[in-house]
Amino acid sequence: TFNWTADDQRAVDTVRVLAADAVEKVGNGHPGTAMSLAPAAYLLFQKVMRLDPKNPDWMGRDRFILSPGHTSLTLYIQLFLSGYGLELKDLEALRTWGSLTPGHPEYKHTKGVEITTGPLGQGLASAVGFAYSQRRMRGLMDPDAAPGTSPFDHTVWVIASDGDLQEGVTSEASSLAGHQELGNMVVIYDSNHISIEDDTNIAYSEDVLKRYEAYGWHTQRVDWTKTGEYVEDAAELYTALEAAKAETSKPSIVLLRTIIGYPSPKKQNTGGIHGSALGSAEVAALKTELGFDPEKHFDVDPAILAHARKVIDRGAQARAEWTTGFNAWKSANPDNAALLERIEKKELPAGWEAQLPTFQAGKDVSTRAASGKVLNAIGGVLPELWGGSCDLAGSNNTTIEGFGSFVPASKQTDTWSGTPYGRVLHFGIREHAAAAIVNGIHLGGPTRAFSGTFLIFSDYQRPAIRLSALMGVPSIYVWTHDSIGLGEDGPTHQPVEQLATLRAIPGLDVVRPGDPNEVAAAWKKILETTDNPAGIVLTRQNIPTYARGTGTATATEFGSTDGVAKGGYVLAEAVSDGAVVTPAVILIATGSEVQLAMEAREALAADGIAARVVSMPCVEWFHAQTSEYREQILPAAVKARVSVEAGLALGWREFVGDAGRSISLEHFGASADYKRLFQEFGITTEAVTAAARESLAAAGA
Amino acid sequence: TFNWTADDQRAVDTVRVLAADAVEKVGNGHPGTAMSLAPAAYLLFQKVMRLDPKNPDWMGRDRFILSPGHTSLTLYIQLFLSGYGLELKDLEALRTWGSLTPGHPEYKHTKGVEITTGPLGQGLASAVGFAYSQRRMRGLMDPDAAPGTSPFDHTVWVIASDGDLQEGVTSEASSLAGHQELGNMVVIYDSNHISIEDDTNIAYSEDVLKRYEAYGWHTQRVDWTKTGEYVEDAAELYTALEAAKAETSKPSIVLLRTIIGYPSPKKQNTGGIHGSALGSAEVAALKTELGFDPEKHFDVDPAILAHARKVIDRGAQARAEWTTGFNAWKSANPDNAALLERIEKKELPAGWEAQLPTFQAGKDVSTRAASGKVLNAIGGVLPELWGGSCDLAGSNNTTIEGFGSFVPASKQTDTWSGTPYGRVLHFGIREHAAAAIVNGIHLGGPTRAFSGTFLIFSDYQRPAIRLSALMGVPSIYVWTHDSIGLGEDGPTHQPVEQLATLRAIPGLDVVRPGDPNEVAAAWKKILETTDNPAGIVLTRQNIPTYARGTGTATATEFGSTDGVAKGGYVLAEAVSDGAVVTPAVILIATGSEVQLAMEAREALAADGIAARVVSMPCVEWFHAQTSEYREQILPAAVKARVSVEAGLALGWREFVGDAGRSISLEHFGASADYKRLFQEFGITTEAVTAAARESLAAAGA
Repeated sequence: TFNWTADDQRAVDTVRVLAADAVEKVGNGHPGTAMSLAPAAYLLFQKVMRLDPKNPDWMGRDRFILSPGHTSLTLYIQLFLSGYGLELKDLEALRTWGSLTPGHPEYKHTKGVEITTGPLGQGLASAVGFAYSQRRMRGLMDPDAAPGTSPFDHTVWVIASDGDLQEGVTSEASSLAGHQELGNMVVIYDSNHISIEDDTNIAYSEDVLKRYEAYGWHTQRVDWTKTGEYVEDAAELYTALEAAKAETSKPSIVLLRTIIGYPSPKKQNTGGIHGSALGSAEVAALKTELGFDPEKHFDVDPAILAHARKVIDRGAQARAEWTTGFNAWKSANPDNAALLERIEKKELPAGWEAQLPTFQAGKDVSTRAASGKVLNAIGGVLPELWGGSCDLAGSNNTTIEGFGSFVPASKQTDTWSGTPYGRVLHFGIREHAAAAIVNGIHLGGPTRAFSGTFLIFSDYQRPAIRLSALMGVPSIYVWTHDSIGLGEDGPTHQPVEQLATLRAIPGLDVVRPGDPNEVAAAWKKILETTDNPAGIVLTRQNIPTYARGTGTATATEFGSTDGVAKGGYVLAEAVSDGAVVTPAVILIATGSEVQLAMEAREALAADGIAARVVSMPCVEWFHAQTSEYREQILPAAVKARVSVEAGLALGWREFVGDAGRSISLEHFGASADYKRLFQEFGITTEAVTAAARESLAAAGA
Repeated sequence: TFNWTADDQRAVDTVRVLAADAVEKVGNGHPGTAMSLAPAAYLLFQKVMRLDPKNPDWMGRDRFILSPGHTSLTLYIQLFLSGYGLELKDLEALRTWGSLTPGHPEYKHTKGVEITTGPLGQGLASAVGFAYSQRRMRGLMDPDAAPGTSPFDHTVWVIASDGDLQEGVTSEASSLAGHQELGNMVVIYDSNHISIEDDTNIAYSEDVLKRYEAYGWHTQRVDWTKTGEYVEDAAELYTALEAAKAETSKPSIVLLRTIIGYPSPKKQNTGGIHGSALGSAEVAALKTELGFDPEKHFDVDPAILAHARKVIDRGAQARAEWTTGFNAWKSANPDNAALLERIEKKELPAGWEAQLPTFQAGKDVSTRAASGKVLNAIGGVLPELWGGSCDLAGSNNTTIEGFGSFVPASKQTDTWSGTPYGRVLHFGIREHAAAAIVNGIHLGGPTRAFSGTFLIFSDYQRPAIRLSALMGVPSIYVWTHDSIGLGEDGPTHQPVEQLATLRAIPGLDVVRPGDPNEVAAAWKKILETTDNPAGIVLTRQNIPTYARGTGTATATEFGSTDGVAKGGYVLAEAVSDGAVVTPAVILIATGSEVQLAMEAREALAADGIAARVVSMPCVEWFHAQTSEYREQILPAAVKARVSVEAGLALGWREFVGDAGRSISLEHFGASADYKRLFQEFGITTEAVTAAARESLAAAGA
C-alpha cells in the first residue's frame, strides 16, 4: 500500500533546494530536471526499487539508469538521501576537480552509479542490455524458478529524457526491447517539453507512446498537468510504476508529463533552467516558495534526512530476505553456484585454454573463420560467453552453435531456434544498439558478451565504444571484413581509417591477428582482460597459417603465438648465414599484411638484407610491456623500418620514425576483386621490399 | 491513366534475368532484391517519376534514392533500360575494377546516381535532406507559386529496405520528416521479411507503419502476397504511389510486401539469394520460368529495349514543358534567376568577403562566438547558406538571425518564429540525422548548409561524415566545445581523440582556428570550397585575439590571417636582436593552444631561444600546398619542434619528427573548471617551454 507522508514531501522539496544550491555554488550545471524529477526519483529510491544502500553492488538489487546524465543531481541527491555514501560536502563539490560528484555520473567513481551517462541515448540503450543480462543470468542459473521467485529476478528502472528519446540509438534498442519482450524493464520518460532550444515542439512533435506501442511496449501516460494546474501526484505515478512492473510480458514506458524546474517561480518551464544556475534571487524565491529559509544553503533538516535514510534498514531487510532465498538456491544448485562464484570473481575456469584450437600450418584460412572456430571450441567451457551479430552472423562467424538463440519462442525462425534464455544474439541491422546493449550486459551482470559487424560499421558504434572504454567495461567487438580485402562491395564498405581511429580511443584494445593461430591467442588475452573493452579485427579473405616454433623466433623457426599477448613480437628473425643477426631493417605488420612482410623478408634475404618481421596484433598491449621488452623487439639502433597495414599510416610513424616508411592506404577504396585492389593500391610484397630499401638508405644517410 | 503492357512486363522480367546474369558473371553480389524490386523500380522510372535520361542533372527532375545500395543493380538496370548511358557491357562489368557499375552506387561516378549508398540507413536519412532542399529552394526562388505549379516543385522518391528501417539514423530523420510535414517525399519500403540472417522475425517484429504514423507520416500497405499467391500488381502499386504523391501535407511511406528473389524457383524467399550468386542451374531455371533462353546471357530483346527507352522522348517532352515554365519564371523573377545562376555555378557573390567581420585585437573571444558573428555578418549576402543546431543553437552560435526557422507554421514556438521556407534548422537531439540531412541538402540542390553540435558528438555523425567525404559534397559541420576547455561537463563531453580521428577521414577538412580572426578566414575558405566537406572546430572558452600585420610575419608583426587558407602559416616569427632569424625551435599549435605557443615563444625569447610559432588551423589545407611553401613554414633543417593541441598527439609526429615533442592529452578528461584541467593535465605554457628545451636537446644530440 502506497504511503506518502509530509516527511516524504519535505524530502522531495529538500531535493529541489539542494539541486538549486549545488548548481548555484559551482555556477554552472543542470538544475531544472533535478528539481522536477525529484518526486519520481525519490519514489523510485524510497518506495519502488529493491536496493540496499550499504551494499550497492548487491547482485539482487534493482538496477537504476539515469539516461540523461546531465541531471546527475537527480541521482546524486538520492544517493545522499538514501545513504549510499555521498554527503552534503560532496554535493557542495559538484562539478569540481576530484569530487565524487562530477558533471555527469561516472561508473566506478561514485557508489550507486550503475553506468556512466551523458551522451544522450546511451543510458536507455544500454538499459536494454541490463535487461538482457538479467534474463540470461536467470537462464544460466535458475531457469526453472517460477516468475518473481528467483534470486536472479530484478527490475531495470530507467529515467529517460526527451533527448534520449530523439536519439536513434534508443530507437534501435527499444525496437529490440519490444521484440525481446523484456518484461523486466520500466522506463520513466520525463516529458517536459523543454530542451536547450526551449519548447521541444520546434523539432519534436511525434507521438512517442504510439511509437513505443509499435515496438511492442506497454505504455502509460501520467500527466501531472492534466488538471490545468501542476499537481505532482506521487500516488498516480506509483500506481503506474507498479502496473509497469507487473507487466512482465513486455517492456514498459511511463510517459510522465512534468514541468521542468518546478516550482521555480520565474524559471520553471523554460529552456533557461535546463542548463544554467538559477541565480541567487531565484534560488531564494524557490526556497521561499517551498518554505525553506532563503538565507541558508545546503540546509537539510536532520529529521528529514533520518526519515529518508530509513531506506537503509529496509534495504538491509530486503537483502536479508533475498539472501535466504539465494542461500537456498545455492544449496540446491551447487554447480551453478560454483559457476556464479567464478564469474563474479571474473575468473576463467582452470585449464580452459586447453580448448583453444590449433590451426594447421600451411593452410590458408580467413581470420574470421578461425575466430568462429575459437568461439565454438571454447563455448562449452565458458557458459558466461555469449553474443551475436548485426544481421551478419554467417559473415562475422559469431555464432556459438548448439545453445540456441536468445529470443522469445514465438520469434524463432526456420534458421534459428531459441528460447528467452538462449545464447546467440540477433541485433538486426542496428550496430549502435548492439554496442550499447553489450555495454549494458557487462554493467548489469557478470557474463561476457560480444557483438559482431563489419569493421566499417564500427563508425556507427563509436559513441558506445567510447563509453565502454571510458567506463572500463570489457565489451568485445568482433569486426570482420577489415580492409579493402573485402573486395567487390567497394569503398562504402572498405575500412581505411578505422584501425587508426579505433586505436585512438583511450583504453580500447584493437587486436588484428596475423594468422589463424594468432586469432586463438588473441581471444585468450581478450577474455583474460576484464577491465577494458577490446575489438578483434578479422579478415574476410584467406591468409596463410604459419608453421611456428614453441618459443621465440630462432634462425630456423618462427616465433610462437605466446608473443601475441604482448601486442607485438618477432614472428620471423633477421637471419644471415644461418644465424640470427641484428636486423638491417624491421618490417612491422598486422593482420593480412603480415604475409607481405614475410614475403618481403625472403625477397630481401635473397639480396643479403637481413630483415626481421614483427607481427603487431595489438599496439595497446605492446605499449603496456616494459621498455626492455619493447627495445628487444624494436631496437632503437635499427632505424630502418617499414610498417605494413592496409589502412592509414596514421599512428605508425611513432614506430618507424623519421627514417621509416609506411606501406598504407591514404584514400578510399574501390569496388573490385581484392587481389586487384591490393595491386592497384600498391600494397604488395614488392612495395614493402622497395620501402625497406628506401628506409635503409634514409637510415644510412 | 495507368497502362501496363506485355512489353512492360517483358521489360521487368528482362531486369530479373539481367540481375541474375550480372551477379553470376562476377560471381558475387546481391541479386535477390534486384529481381523482386524490378516491377517497382521499372514503374518509378517509366511511369511515375519526372526525369530526362539525357539530362540527368536537370534541375526539374524528380530525385531517386536507392537506400539499400547493395541492390545497386536495381538502379543500374533501370539506368540501362532508360538510356542514361549505361549499356550491357557495363552490366557485364559489375563490381569490377574501373567499371561504371561498382558494388554500391557511387555519386559523381555513374550518371543518374543521385547519392552514394551502401551503409544502411544513410540513403533514407539523406532523402529527408533532399526534401528539405527542394522546399528551401522553392522558398528562395518561387515562394508564391501555387502548389505544383513551380519549376522548383519536384518529388523525392526513395526505395528503402528492412535494414534501412532498422538503423537509428532513419528513425531520427523520419521523425524530422514527419515533423516538417514533408509532402514532397515518398518512400517505398521493400518489406520482404528476409535479410542476411534469413527471416527478419528473428530480430525485427515491430509494426513499422504504426511507427511511421507516430512520426506523422501518411502510410499505405501494398501486399502482393495477400491472396496467398504472389501477384505483382503494378497497378495497385501505381495507385498507391500516386496517392502518396498527392498527399502533400506529410511524407508518405508505402509498405510493399515482396518476396525476395521472385521468381527464382528454388531460392526466392531465402537469405541465400540476398547476397550471393544464384548458381548457373538456378539462373537457367529462372530464365526458363520467365520464358527466356537459358543458354543465353545478357540477352535483351531489342524491341523491349526500344520500348523502355521511349522514356527518353517522354523525358525530353517533360523537360521542354518544364523549361517553358522555368523561362517564364526567369523573366518574371530576374533577381532570383541571377541568384539561381550564381549558386548553380557554385560561385560566391562578388565582394562578399567584405562582409566578413574583423575582430578587435586584444579582446578575448571564444571562437564559437566569433563564428556566430561571421555567420550573421555574411548571412545577408549569402542567401544560399543555411543551417542550424542539434538542440544547441545558443551554444553552437549557429543561428543566422532575422530570417526565421525552417518549420511549419504550427510548430513555431515562443522562442523561434518561422515558416516552411525559413532558414534556421532545428535538428533536435539527432546528430546523426543532422549530418545525413545536410548531405542530402547538398545533393538535392545548390544551397550550402551546416549542422552544429558539440565536437564530441561528431562520433554520432561519423557514418554520414564519411559519406560526405567519399561523395565529395561540401557539407559543413560546426563543432563547438572542442576540448577539455569545455570544463565541468566532464569526460563524456570532452573530445580527446576526435580531432585526430576526424582528420583521419580522407577528404574531410578539419579546421580549428586559433583566434577570432582566423575564424573569419576559415569560414571564407570553407565557403569557397565546393567539392569536399569541412568541419570547423571551435572553443567554448574565450581566447586571445592577436594584433596582426597585413602580410607575412615580420620581426615586429604577427602574420595576417591570409595564411589560414594555406592551412598552416607563421603567426609569430623567430626573432633575435630585433631581426627575423632561422628558428631554433618551431612551435606548432592549433585553436586555443596557439596562445600557449605564443606565450612559450616569449618565455623562450627571454632565454635567448628564438622560437617560431606556426598556427596550423587545417592540416589538410597545409598538405595541399606546394612543397616549397611547406618547407618555408617548416624548414626541414629545424628539427627542434613542438606540437601543442589539447587532444591526442596522434598525427603530429609527422610534423615534429623524431626529435620533436608533443604537448597533448592521451587519456580521457575530467569534470572541473577548464583552467584547472589544463593545469592538471599539463597543457600549459610551462610544459610547452620545457618540451621545446627537450626537443632542442634531442635535435642537437
